[in-house]
Amino acid sequence: MREKDNDENVLEFEIINKILNGTKEEIEEEMENIHPVDLLEELEQYEGNPNDILKKLPDYYVASLIGEMEDEDKYKMLSSFSQQREENIISEMASDDLADMLGEVDEDVKEKIISKMDHEQAEEVRSLLGYEEDTAGGLMAKEFIAIKEEMTIEESVEYLREKAPDSETPYYIYVLDNKGILKGVVSLRDIIVAERNTKIRDIMNENVLCVPVDMDQEEVGRLFEKYGYMVIPVVDEHHVMCGIITFDDIIDVLNEETTEDIYLLGGLSEGETIDSSPFYAIRSRLPWLMINLVTAAMAASVVGAFEGTISKIVALATFMPIVTGMGGNAGTQTLTLIVRGIALDELNEKNTKQVLIKELIVGIVNGICLGIVVGIAAKLWVGKAVFGFIIGLAMVLNLIVAASAGYFVPVILKKLNIDPALASGVFVTTFTDVMGFFFFLGLATLFVEKLV
Amino acid sequence: MREKDNDENVLEFEIINKILNGTKEEIEEEMENIHPVDLLEELEQYEGNPNDILKKLPDYYVASLIGEMEDEDKYKMLSSFSQQREENIISEMASDDLADMLGEVDEDVKEKIISKMDHEQAEEVRSLLGYEEDTAGGLMAKEFIAIKEEMTIEESVEYLREKAPDSETPYYIYVLDNKGILKGVVSLRDIIVAERNTKIRDIMNENVLCVPVDMDQEEVGRLFEKYGYMVIPVVDEHHVMCGIITFDDIIDVLNEETTEDIYLLGGLSEGETIDSSPFYAIRSRLPWLMINLVTAAMAASVVGAFEGTISKIVALATFMPIVTGMGGNAGTQTLTLIVRGIALDELNEKNTKQVLIKELIVGIVNGICLGIVVGIAAKLWVGKAVFGFIIGLAMVLNLIVAASAGYFVPVILKKLNIDPALASGVFVTTFTDVMGFFFFLGLATLFVEKLV
Repeated sequence: MREKDNDENVLEFEIINKILNGTKEEIEEEMENIHPVDLLEELEQYEGNPNDILKKLPDYYVASLIGEMEDEDKYKMLSSFSQQREENIISEMASDDLADMLGEVDEDVKEKIISKMDHEQAEEVRSLLGYEEDTAGGLMAKEFIAIKEEMTIEESVEYLREKAPDSETPYYIYVLDNKGILKGVVSLRDIIVAERNTKIRDIMNENVLCVPVDMDQEEVGRLFEKYGYMVIPVVDEHHVMCGIITFDDIIDVLNEETTEDIYLLGGLSEGETIDSSPFYAIRSRLPWLMINLVTAAMAASVVGAFEGTISKIVALATFMPIVTGMGGNAGTQTLTLIVRGIALDELNEKNTKQVLIKELIVGIVNGICLGIVVGIAAKLWVGKAVFGFIIGLAMVLNLIVAASAGYFVPVILKKLNIDPALASGVFVTTFTDVMGFFFFLGLATLFVEKLV
Repeated sequence: MREKDNDENVLEFEIINKILNGTKEEIEEEMENIHPVDLLEELEQYEGNPNDILKKLPDYYVASLIGEMEDEDKYKMLSSFSQQREENIISEMASDDLADMLGEVDEDVKEKIISKMDHEQAEEVRSLLGYEEDTAGGLMAKEFIAIKEEMTIEESVEYLREKAPDSETPYYIYVLDNKGILKGVVSLRDIIVAERNTKIRDIMNENVLCVPVDMDQEEVGRLFEKYGYMVIPVVDEHHVMCGIITFDDIIDVLNEETTEDIYLLGGLSEGETIDSSPFYAIRSRLPWLMINLVTAAMAASVVGAFEGTISKIVALATFMPIVTGMGGNAGTQTLTLIVRGIALDELNEKNTKQVLIKELIVGIVNGICLGIVVGIAAKLWVGKAVFGFIIGLAMVLNLIVAASAGYFVPVILKKLNIDPALASGVFVTTFTDVMGFFFFLGLATLFVEKLV
């Protein structure tokens, strides 16, 4: 039993030594107890030559190691072996891992790798390469178990004994007709519980949720979340079963999609990771900053239009960033809630009006609270009550703008079929900056005689 | 077969009619094809009295409906039934759903509900109520299948035929000793493939990853992600097996945790949802805005210190929000990357220095690019080259501050064991505002004679 705690690193350092010094049999037994993900971590920390360790591992284990790596690193590991070993490892790899790997290499390398597969595997991998990466087809694996409805439990068990070790998830068995069309599903539990001469037809569940090959991966992810399924079968336009998607692939998709939303809200492009090169990072971020610069210039030009007023009352320059800053923060609050609500499918036709009204109420109340505090502070600082009144009123008005912009910008982007997180932040703060400066400096200009 | 597409709403409207007009047998058969989540959605849209539908459904189905509801709504649904039916439904409910429901009701209601359970169920639920909600113990269910190592495959299959329909995930079967200590695991697949007289001991996998009852749910979530497991068993301090956590509970946890991060970055408290009341929303957001107000006042006081310079060159007021605004945006980019990197466990001891250096390079390069553009624009607007130089230099300096603050604030919070998303945004923009105003207005003051 392996309990996850802080002592584990001490234990795991032994793994590498056991592999280096073990016999073939000892290593085979040892590897049953080590998840490939853990060994990958060990290898990253290992200071010697990782090939010393890799060459002692069984082929099937190296295949699963490669399966757990980032797509762009898979081929590097594979190509570190001899030609013959490479072929052996390929034959142990799952079709979806192979397809992910081939998506990252040049055309000639791709053909070279495919030429090392047997006919069946090559065909599976080629068909997977035909699908867009971010669709159900791009996610699925070809390894699933299929039986016929006329089979008995006894025949099915016999068939499973032969086939089960090969497939990705031997918990559900799909029932197909002669044309490969998906008819139903049975679980291993159904098979264990049933009498030996029962026909599959009589115990199969005909109500299988399946997804078309071209469904977007984000939508597939939502279905997994919604129904809590472990596996979803994928079918083509004729309802012929093409593959299965398992929940562990989906956890990665869900992570990718939320990372994308978080990045877009923060003004980063989706491809960037913490380890990206400075060059990549600059290319990812500078365009956003340049867009921001244009919108900041718009806001600045509003200030510029009121330079005459500011030259009379310089304290306006001190207080104006407070009005716009608070507007930006309040707008971001509404925006964050709405973008996340859209991502989690919580904003629907029924509550859309109600949410808008709530946001407006929140904007008005928060605006009044902040307006009173800022107004009093400004009165104490500058000494003029009318100054306090102006900044307080500007704050209330700008928080209403903030609530409206935070709500409408993502909702409208969504209606236009654009990712609601994309550039939402820029739009919202542009609104709150432009309007914040306009309200505060405009009101000051109206009351300029009482302020000087 | 049920393929998810846009036509489904047309089909599903029939479900409610079928339930309303069907015989008991017809309904029982119909319900096999309808996932509780789908019926819940139908019920929400249904304009008639939902009780008309609920009273025709079998008890076990209502139990799973309640299991799929939000914790705070579970008891409302349960209490809409007669005393006798309530008792029947409770007996069909899973222990973790019951515990989640009881976590939301008053003490006397809790005791009333527990009194309706049989002895075994009451004990299970009581033990679950003893764990903190956000730990492994708070997530786990008590329904798992356990066998002994001396049993044969034949005996195990016999046992499974009796027990399997009751348990949450009948795919893994845990092997316990007489004291309840977890010794290993066998999958149904192992059982199907093995000879009938094999002992469980000989086929069980002794390398079971398990987690202690008090492990934080976020950490449990990371383990599911890392290993792609479907189920993880939970053990107490004596390694006695207490329950299992299944991946569908974990998808909710992972969603919760990312929502929390996104919210904190956007200045919202974790409990708020899109449907929260205005009162709740104000209570969630106003404190953040008030904190922001204090930090905005700090930045404003820097501007205030330079009012003398601004009164001489009013154009400074126009351009100063651009310097601070761009600093804030650049800081948020670095911050977003680091906070997400920490959440996904991508920032480790090995790359921490390298990431900091990268962020500084990116800050300098982006600062120079933006500085040149802004400098030229300012020169054209104001007509003085030195004005352009000052704002350009201030931009470079502030983007270095932005990169440093975006990196160090979350990293230091993390070291202090505080959620790195918490208040990070406020700290970072405070740094960039204060330093941005200071650099720009300070440089202007130094060169004031050349500017007037």
